[in-house]
Amino acid sequence: MRAMTMTNWTLAVEDLPDLRPGPGQMLTEVLACGICGSDLHMRLHGPTQMALRTELAADAEPDPTRAAPFVPERPMVMGHEFCCRVVEPGPGVSGLEPGDVVVSMPGIADAAGVHPLGYSNVYPGGYGEQMLLLGALARRVPDGVSAETAALTEPLAVGVHAVAKSRIVPGESAVVLGCGPVGLAVIAALRRAGIGPIVASDFSPTRRRLAEVMGADTVVDPRETPPVVAWRAAAPSRPELVVFEAVGVPGLLEEAMRLAPRNGRVVVVGVCMETDRLRPMIAIGKELNVQFVLAYTADEFDASLRMLAAGEVAFPAIVTGRVGIDGAPGAFDALADPEAHAKILVVPGRALS
Amino acid sequence: MRAMTMTNWTLAVEDLPDLRPGPGQMLTEVLACGICGSDLHMRLHGPTQMALRTELAADAEPDPTRAAPFVPERPMVMGHEFCCRVVEPGPGVSGLEPGDVVVSMPGIADAAGVHPLGYSNVYPGGYGEQMLLLGALARRVPDGVSAETAALTEPLAVGVHAVAKSRIVPGESAVVLGCGPVGLAVIAALRRAGIGPIVASDFSPTRRRLAEVMGADTVVDPRETPPVVAWRAAAPSRPELVVFEAVGVPGLLEEAMRLAPRNGRVVVVGVCMETDRLRPMIAIGKELNVQFVLAYTADEFDASLRMLAAGEVAFPAIVTGRVGIDGAPGAFDALADPEAHAKILVVPGRALS
Repeated sequence: MRAMTMTNWTLAVEDLPDLRPGPGQMLTEVLACGICGSDLHMRLHGPTQMALRTELAADAEPDPTRAAPFVPERPMVMGHEFCCRVVEPGPGVSGLEPGDVVVSMPGIADAAGVHPLGYSNVYPGGYGEQMLLLGALARRVPDGVSAETAALTEPLAVGVHAVAKSRIVPGESAVVLGCGPVGLAVIAALRRAGIGPIVASDFSPTRRRLAEVMGADTVVDPRETPPVVAWRAAAPSRPELVVFEAVGVPGLLEEAMRLAPRNGRVVVVGVCMETDRLRPMIAIGKELNVQFVLAYTADEFDASLRMLAAGEVAFPAIVTGRVGIDGAPGAFDALADPEAHAKILVVPGRALS
Repeated sequence: MRAMTMTNWTLAVEDLPDLRPGPGQMLTEVLACGICGSDLHMRLHGPTQMALRTELAADAEPDPTRAAPFVPERPMVMGHEFCCRVVEPGPGVSGLEPGDVVVSMPGIADAAGVHPLGYSNVYPGGYGEQMLLLGALARRVPDGVSAETAALTEPLAVGVHAVAKSRIVPGESAVVLGCGPVGLAVIAALRRAGIGPIVASDFSPTRRRLAEVMGADTVVDPRETPPVVAWRAAAPSRPELVVFEAVGVPGLLEEAMRLAPRNGRVVVVGVCMETDRLRPMIAIGKELNVQFVLAYTADEFDASLRMLAAGEVAFPAIVTGRVGIDGAPGAFDALADPEAHAKILVVPGRALS
């Protein structure tokens, strides 16, 4: 099968051996897979991440259910925001038939333990023609929902989870710093949860337009209007405020802390893989609560699929491009420009582009 | 009156004009006043603090009830952990008589607004012979409680507040990083709240001994035993863990984050006045919640006085030295050595030392 690999942090398109499903697994054909910012980060900051992983593993208690982590020297197919069509259910899979369209949380198990789909040398992720999925984790996509929309289940779930962990409730307000795919998922989930006003901030006009489509009430260019000024104008009754940091670059955590009011809450959903600097006094003086979040629960993943299927969120509007597998390396470069794109889908069945 | 002043971050002992109480105020004689780490920090990092204060004031909405902040060029008498004897209740003060021994939260009001006692050019703090206190904020110290014990109400309240904000409950466990006065207050408050096991960590043998007196179950030198190893040994059933960062120097926040388990809570009670560095991925990967805390509520202040009066906490054991006003500048230097001291009280009535 054809797939985009990463070896030693370098992307390439290669022909890999076809896959065979083991017990409980299914062979599937990838219909669409979104390119995630985590994958862009992993390519750019992989060695830092590996060193941190080694350091933290030394702290942790052993978890024998986890398979060995990937090594960068061997090829890996990334891609964890996928929607697939079942080709061949393997031994022991019940309730799913060839032709069923499915999504799944990105994990698969075998005798070696649980492997993360998209960050494994053993099981390819969604930037290829084929994937193996676990029957038990697969969710059938309802009829009438496109594969491209269903592939957004995973990134939407990130926003749904961040909003849930924030414990924000109607009557409270939100500022979202950064309107990339993560920030847009947060805005869509906030709107769906009945939160308002929602103030969003991004340098990019394209992303600000998307933030409005997702349901932000006020959208600002922070070079022109500080988000806190926009929030004060939008929320004259000064409701409780939760600041979502959805950028994930150094400096933004402190910016979120500065913006938060006394006893305010900051939710860190942007994934900053570098060392950050901050002045703790800013947070101490206001007694801030900072909740770091990652990923989602199975219930949140399922809820995201339901929201997309029911058309309750505007999230499908974030798709700004589609490429075939041969176009995937170029898409990684194109995503560096926030004006051109928000979310690019890899669509293996697509003509070369 | 004689007092230790700070002018341009330099300490001196001077004679200042005697004080006269305004409406609602009382003239008091200082019986004892603890030297707080915040004051040591303020002397060493004052310019950084001033710059940050100016920067944050630009973000904040105006608060006309606050009097103008202190300027470093004019003398200021620090000291906010005081116990005083009433000399002359001023106009409008009721229920307190000359001779009453009192403590108070460190604030006083006049027509210009609220001034922080201990960080004001207008109202001297407790490192002097006299203070003005607000009748409404003063709490009478119960008979039989020494002024030295009552002077610990304020620093104990810091620990009581941190424990309350952590929402820790019996059945959960705690690791306290740092056994200076703040960490010791946290340990005493945790023990009083029925939390255990409590694991405490400090480089200093003196402070480790005090941590045991406060009620820590396991006390380690982190150079010999990592606190997480000690916690695993002390808590084989792996109860929920709250990590209290009570050191307040750069690097400790990341250390607390490394120590916390998945979904763990970190409470930052150490006051780090410098810029810190951390890798957010450590907190993101474990979905940590970080609660920054400062000060206490009026209820917590009152509860701390009651705990001290009832002998429910071992906190009075933290007092390792007493000096007169002339000895106060030297005490600031002596506190740099954690082996020699934990808490030094300035006792103005004491012979020169």
